[in-house]
Amino acid sequence: MQADFPSWVANRQTRFEQVLRELLPSADVAPQRLHAAMRYSVLEGGKRVRPLLAFAAGELAGAPEGRVNFAAAAVELIHAYSLVHDDMPCMDDDVLRRGKPTCHVEYDEATALLVGDALQSLAFQLLSEQRLSDDAGRQLQMVKLLAVASGSRGMAGGQAIDLSSVGKQLTLPELEQMHIHKTGALIRAAIMLGAQCGSDNNRGNGLNEAQLDHLDRFGKLIGLAFQVVDDVLDCEADTATLGKTAGKDADNDKPTYVSLLGLQGARDMAQRLHREALESLDGFGDAARRLRELADFIVLRKF
Amino acid sequence: MQADFPSWVANRQTRFEQVLRELLPSADVAPQRLHAAMRYSVLEGGKRVRPLLAFAAGELAGAPEGRVNFAAAAVELIHAYSLVHDDMPCMDDDVLRRGKPTCHVEYDEATALLVGDALQSLAFQLLSEQRLSDDAGRQLQMVKLLAVASGSRGMAGGQAIDLSSVGKQLTLPELEQMHIHKTGALIRAAIMLGAQCGSDNNRGNGLNEAQLDHLDRFGKLIGLAFQVVDDVLDCEADTATLGKTAGKDADNDKPTYVSLLGLQGARDMAQRLHREALESLDGFGDAARRLRELADFIVLRKF
Repeated sequence: MQADFPSWVANRQTRFEQVLRELLPSADVAPQRLHAAMRYSVLEGGKRVRPLLAFAAGELAGAPEGRVNFAAAAVELIHAYSLVHDDMPCMDDDVLRRGKPTCHVEYDEATALLVGDALQSLAFQLLSEQRLSDDAGRQLQMVKLLAVASGSRGMAGGQAIDLSSVGKQLTLPELEQMHIHKTGALIRAAIMLGAQCGSDNNRGNGLNEAQLDHLDRFGKLIGLAFQVVDDVLDCEADTATLGKTAGKDADNDKPTYVSLLGLQGARDMAQRLHREALESLDGFGDAARRLRELADFIVLRKF
Repeated sequence: MQADFPSWVANRQTRFEQVLRELLPSADVAPQRLHAAMRYSVLEGGKRVRPLLAFAAGELAGAPEGRVNFAAAAVELIHAYSLVHDDMPCMDDDVLRRGKPTCHVEYDEATALLVGDALQSLAFQLLSEQRLSDDAGRQLQMVKLLAVASGSRGMAGGQAIDLSSVGKQLTLPELEQMHIHKTGALIRAAIMLGAQCGSDNNRGNGLNEAQLDHLDRFGKLIGLAFQVVDDVLDCEADTATLGKTAGKDADNDKPTYVSLLGLQGARDMAQRLHREALESLDGFGDAARRLRELADFIVLRKF
């Protein structure tokens, strides 16, 4: 009998936290302050949405959990570094993240800068030193996938578009382009890397190209849905329940789905993306159960 | 007949500049401002010491130039990102680099932060998407080598030690530990990656493990020598000839080889490291000619 979804999530989150604890350099190892700040910025934080998606995609593809751990950790380290850098005074200037002081507040700006830099390096170290595939050539492609998703035509590029959009009236397609890069690229990478941990051709399992395409479409849709829901929640929430400084986007005159579509329009869009995302999983049967549950979770969450 | 050293350097620098121009995203491609800032931060700058070392090591190992181009570019992108981040106000707060306004001055701080982040991603993209070895498993090891050299136990870690040393009296071994990480790790990586582009076991060429160890020792020694000479030059130079704000280290009360050993003591140390570096190449004969010439160049340079 399969575990119910909340148990599956809790179990995965607990085990993954232990994986991160073991993969991050110990705060006893020099340079101690940097390592302590890296651990502070990664551990005990967040819902681990990207790792959960990687695990769900890995299960769909029959990937060994040990391999998916490393892929999920690499994606989460990239995500964590981006939060540390985003929070810095020259970017969003946030002092609170997940209910804790942000890295540059708890430590200092220079350390936060280095924490982000070193977390990115560590992500690529994990992807290259651990065995994620029996086929080293395929694993190189996985490294490339994360590099592209993180770089100027992925997440960092989305941030740059975001920067240049402050105070501007974006169209819906422009807003979508920004989020496809800023949030979507890494969510898609999490799903694709999880799935590819199970795609050893010589073992006869894993997913075929058409299936990977369906999965990529799911990732694109759910990545957008995630952002739309974020905008809705940001509009609704207050600082106390969200654990970050609420209303910042509106203060900064940043375009959001709510500012473009209104609150109800944004909610409708999230529902539509949710439905289309589920449709893209139609061919997978029950093996995609966790991905469907995660799609529900992402769209229906209240926090 | 082999070209003389200045011609070899000029030729390599010119060709490598063209390689970088082609590998960096065009400023016409969105996000345009980020891509323009990435190009601004990498192109037309510096002596390209790390790439030259990679090319020299590649020649020693019989590596195809096309492959070494990508390895050299990956290392140079990591170096360039570290300069962009180092120059930011929360780190060294430098306004001039290679005679031009630093990235955050020419653009803005948020863009400089993203430029560094995206250059690091691009380095790993290059190492994973281009063929550097016939053996994909070996190429994964090359990705790991650069990741470790860049991260918290390499370059970024060296920066962290540097930060924590401001205003402190370091011992000579402590100063050495800092520089082995901060500057040395990437110089060693340049040499090892260049050499490994020629190490396809199934082609029967390349270097054996003992030879790679000698080369690594050369990299370690020449990396340290590079830093000692930097400290000597920083003490001697003025802003006009160095193209960066001179005397900053002394202003910031940062420990240097000159502050620990005196000017003549630091010069003597550079000479000793130079000699030991050359000795580590003794077994290679004339094939190591360019590496020897680069060692001379690094230690005897006046700029």
